[in-house]
This record gives sequence, structure tokens and C-alpha cells, in this order.
Amino acid sequence: MSHFSVQQKILFQHCDPAGIVFYPRYFEMINAAVEAWFEEGLGVSFATLHGERGHAVPTVTINTTFQNPSHLGDVLAIDITVLKIGGASLDLEICAQSAGTKRFEATLTLVHINKETGRPHSWSDDLRDAINILLKETS
Amino acid sequence: MSHFSVQQKILFQHCDPAGIVFYPRYFEMINAAVEAWFEEGLGVSFATLHGERGHAVPTVTINTTFQNPSHLGDVLAIDITVLKIGGASLDLEICAQSAGTKRFEATLTLVHINKETGRPHSWSDDLRDAINILLKETS
Amino acid sequence: MSHFSVQQKILFQHCDPAGIVFYPRYFEMINAAVEAWFEEGLGVSFATLHGERGHAVPTVTINTTFQNPSHLGDVLAIDITVLKIGGASLDLEICAQSAGTKRFEATLTLVHINKETGRPHSWSDDLRDAINILLKETS
Amino acid sequence: MSHFSVQQKILFQHCDPAGIVFYPRYFEMINAAVEAWFEEGLGVSFATLHGERGHAVPTVTINTTFQNPSHLGDVLAIDITVLKIGGASLDLEICAQSAGTKRFEATLTLVHINKETGRPHSWSDDLRDAINILLKETS
Repeated sequence: MSHFSVQQKILFQHCDPAGIVFYPRYFEMINAAVEAWFEEGLGVSFATLHGERGHAVPTVTINTTFQNPSHLGDVLAIDITVLKIGGASLDLEICAQSAGTKRFEATLTLVHINKETGRPHSWSDDLRDAINILLKETS
Repeated sequence: MSHFSVQQKILFQHCDPAGIVFYPRYFEMINAAVEAWFEEGLGVSFATLHGERGHAVPTVTINTTFQNPSHLGDVLAIDITVLKIGGASLDLEICAQSAGTKRFEATLTLVHINKETGRPHSWSDDLRDAINILLKETS
Repeated sequence: MSHFSVQQKILFQHCDPAGIVFYPRYFEMINAAVEAWFEEGLGVSFATLHGERGHAVPTVTINTTFQNPSHLGDVLAIDITVLKIGGASLDLEICAQSAGTKRFEATLTLVHINKETGRPHSWSDDLRDAINILLKETS
Repeated sequence: MSHFSVQQKILFQHCDPAGIVFYPRYFEMINAAVEAWFEEGLGVSFATLHGERGHAVPTVTINTTFQNPSHLGDVLAIDITVLKIGGASLDLEICAQSAGTKRFEATLTLVHINKETGRPHSWSDDLRDAINILLKETS
């Protein structure tokens, strides 16, 4: 499979007084999944990206649907699929499920920027190559 | 004006190593704005809604665009406008700006549910009436 | 009164599945109270301190007791009292109460550092003067 | 070794504008370590404890020292050692280190309560037995 997958356990700190995940915590999980994907799937950690490279990858749009609630102790499988790469942008689809039911789906656009200027900065060759390999496997 | 507005200062805890708001924190701000709107705009606090009434208003979809970054110390004006009310659902538009620039815009759908069953539950009359008044003022 | 006080409402995002404040959220509130105190009580905002001045005030020790749980909708009064100022350190006492009961008490030590080097940096004259005035009022 | 240890990677979401861990996030890590210890070390998950058993284990005091800052990408080893068990209380020591330097140390007291009443509730036999075994190994 060409998509990247991480496991995320639902902890006490993710849950609200209704006993289910407080939805802003899902966006922390999405960010952590993307962070793991950059390091393990694309070969460039956020420490390297933000540190020595002086880049960042802010999210500029994200559309999310929450299909079913998640409870304390659930283990989510969060899958990332590359939809499209642009000069400095990247469209991803993120899907989380557990115990046979979808929990949430998101499509998002990241932009690769120069941290100093805040302006879009073309993807580094290593990142572009790694992303293109995933795109070919998917299509 | 028929929309509800809250002020939100950008605190140290909202900001990431790039010195700007970490976007999952925006969803906490959105939730806090909706929470303030229920209490101050619609007359039913979340404590009452979740407590004695046994209801909840989970977000089922949210589409968000982040136009410009926000920095430590910025004060955002977060506006909520009602788009549509259904039997147990509610569509809202949320727009945040500061110093003349848009920071983010979101459209979201809430569902009014029974906490016990997790099933949609028709809006209480007082909430429906308060929302309908806002809708008329907007149109 | 020589102490500084802020109000903090308990929001949905602060509460756990037991319906009470998840205690790590109290440390966000403590940090926000100290941040408000620097800006409103001492006259130097965190944006100025961390930005143009290039300083920071990390917490190096904090001892906390949680006397009573706080619930959704409670409004806490969080008081800050200066205990002692050193060359680059500051000892504070923080006490939160609501509806006549104590919720938590903390004593903490901050250190004023140079962000670049991470090393202690003597208090700026304006901060030291403002803190000393508070100390005299307290004693 | 009789202590329990978990690994915690420092993620983007833990870091502040100074590029180091924002200290309230350490308390989320402490809570997550205790949560993992209950499930993996003591055999009772928080889902079981809070769900079918109707209990909770709020923290009533926590004293913490932060020795050295942690940065994005660091991997902390967080160790939990049992200090003392009472009728319904538990004293723990938590120590986090990475790359040969201490990051923080905490001593904390938990109380085992009945969620309904909020009152202390004697440790269940299985939890008390599991904790006593660890205490014997330590001493």
C-alpha cells in the first residue's frame, strides 16, 4: 500500500465531559500523523525541516468530517494519502478508523514556506522525490 | 448587527516554534466562541446544556481556511453568523480577523444530540427561537 | 491590594470525562495568568519580552496542590502574589478560588533568561522596579 | 528494574515560540505516562477504571522541577517509581531524561475516588496487589 499509517490511542487528555474525543484534539492527532509521515515516510523530520533547513509546512485549508465518536482507549488507524503536489503545496487525504468504523476524514493543503519570510518556497528535491514516488504508487 | 462577536487574545500557549498560532489551537478558539455564543447570545450555557438538559452539540463537519498567520499578542475578533437551522442541526460561519486582515474562516455543522443515546435530538424551543431571531436579522 | 487577580472561566475544553478540569489545563491557566500579569501588572507584554527584548521567563519549579475540583462554567479568581525576587529569578504564589472554595495553590520559580543562550539574564530595570513596588505593598 | 518506563517523543505541538517544550505539555506527558502504567504495568486501563468501575484517580499534589529544556525531536524516557501506597492514595516519583540529561522530575500524590461521590475509595485488590509487588521490588 502506498499510504502511510500511524496508530493513535485515545487517551484521557483527548476526551471531553461527554466521554468522547474533543474535536480540536483530532487536529493535534492529524498534525502528529503528518509529522510522523515527514520523518518516517519522507525521510525529513520536523526538527530538520524547521531547524537546519529553516522551512515550515503550515496548513492553509482543512476540510473535516467526523463520522463517529471515539472513546477513551480506542486505537485509531490514521492513514495519509497524497492527492497532489504543486510547486510548494501538497494536498493530502487523512482517514481515521477504528473497530471497523470511520471516525474522521480530512482533506488538507499544506504549503512549504521559508520560515523567515513566510513566503512559499519550492519543495526541496528530496521531499519532492519522496512524495512523487508515493503518488506513482497510488495512481 | 445580527452576528455575535468575541475577542480572543493570542497567548503564548497558542503559538508554535514558528512563532505563530499552531492551527489546532484555532479549533479550541472556535469551540470557545461557540460556547460563549450559546451562553451570551442564545441564553443557554454549556453547563446547562450538558448538565441538567443532558444534551450536547458535537461538530460533525468543519471546513476551514487559514488566510494569514496570527502572532503572540494579536487580538482576534471572532464573528459567528447563523447560516441555516435544521431539525437538530445548525450551520454556522465563523470568521476571525485582526488588524484589518482575515486570519481564518470556517463553516461548520453542529448537531444537537441526546448525550445518553448519542442520537440527534430536536432543538429545544428556547434555542430554536433564539436562533431564528438571529436568522431573520441576517436575511 | 498588592496582588494581581484575573478571572478564568472553566470552558468545555478544560474538562475531562469525569466532568472536572483536567489538571494539566490548570497549568495553562497559571501560565496565562502570569502572562496577563506581566502585561497588565508589570507593563511588559510577553510579545515584547519574547520579541524585541529576546528574553523569556521559563518556569523552573512549580509545586501545586489541588484542593477541590472545578466544573464547567465555574469562574475562578486566580491571584498572583510576589514572594521574592532574585538577580534573575522570581518566586510567585498563585491561588485560585471560586464560590468560596480553594481550587488550587501553586508556588513557582521563574527565571528571566536570554532566549539565544538560554542562560539567566538579570531582570530589566523596568521589570525589577515594577516587581519591587508590588513586594513593598505586600510586606 | 521495578520502575515502569515509557518513551515520549517531543512533537511540534509540545513546543513554544522559544522552540522548547511549553511546560504545561509536560503535565499531559506525565498524565499519559501514568495512564500507560495503569494499563501496562498494573493491568487496569483508564477505560476500565473510569468506565465499568466508576472510579477515577485525580492528582491532588504535584511538585515539579524542570532541570533542562527539551527540544523538538528529543525522545524522553519517562520513569515512574512507586514511593508509597495508602488506603486510597498513591505517591509516585516521575523522572524524565534524554541524551544523558534530566529534563524534569515530579513527585505526585494520586487519590483513588468514586466518580459519583468524588470521595476517596479504597484501592481495588488487583490494583493494590500490583502496586505492592512493585514496592517490594523497589525496596
